[in-house]
Amino acid sequence: MDPRISFVTLAARDLAATRRFYVDGLGWTPELDVEGEVVMIKVGQHLVLSLWDQKAFEAEVGPIGEHHGASPFTLAHNVASRQEVDTVLASAHRAGAFVFAARDRDWGGYTGYFGDPDGVRWEIAWNPGPIGLLVLPDRSEH
Amino acid sequence: MDPRISFVTLAARDLAATRRFYVDGLGWTPELDVEGEVVMIKVGQHLVLSLWDQKAFEAEVGPIGEHHGASPFTLAHNVASRQEVDTVLASAHRAGAFVFAARDRDWGGYTGYFGDPDGVRWEIAWNPGPIGLLVLPDRSEH
Repeated sequence: MDPRISFVTLAARDLAATRRFYVDGLGWTPELDVEGEVVMIKVGQHLVLSLWDQKAFEAEVGPIGEHHGASPFTLAHNVASRQEVDTVLASAHRAGAFVFAARDRDWGGYTGYFGDPDGVRWEIAWNPGPIGLLVLPDRSEH
Repeated sequence: MDPRISFVTLAARDLAATRRFYVDGLGWTPELDVEGEVVMIKVGQHLVLSLWDQKAFEAEVGPIGEHHGASPFTLAHNVASRQEVDTVLASAHRAGAFVFAARDRDWGGYTGYFGDPDGVRWEIAWNPGPIGLLVLPDRSEH
């Protein structure tokens, strides 16, 4: 697994309020903006900040909590194929992480998670859509 | 404030275990590695993942907690001067954020924080050291 963060995803208790802060307040422009669901903003050459409705976040990532619960954010590492998702999750497992196996997602991608020693969730993702392509490094950068 | 994340900082309960996972397990190479304190790893062109001893994290960011406490991570937006730190914090304040005023830090930088509507802490930082320069965009990218 090469050292890359593709997405930083924050759980938003009230997505409208969080959107108002980043989009209206700070003046940042969304790449993707789905009312009541998610707002995605480019925050680096291959990096996206995703503001995600907390209910949807917890439905996928697990209940947020201080001890055995999930942290209120995830980091994502995007790859170019479904097969790479499984390969990276297997390498994280060998490194000692607990792994939540990848599955097909409603939005057309294939993703799984692992947890680091502090419980931080890393999503390993294949996303064939425009946002997924945005965060992949160019081949020339390899 | 332009849309950029410079650092993702995770609070590590047991930094040695967290370091073992990322450095020995995943095979990632630290840019900075101070035993018992912090491990910093480049995870993007201008992006650093910082694994920070939880006690030090809480001493600076505040106690981690589910409700009024801090989240167990921070995002940082680095700028090229002390004056820009104050300018960005003022713009976040105008956008509705609560602000923790910037101050000189023991390591030679000048940083402050603001909290977004979900309590996520953004550190606005001027860091004149090599890691600080690593995360600043090149002038040609503006």
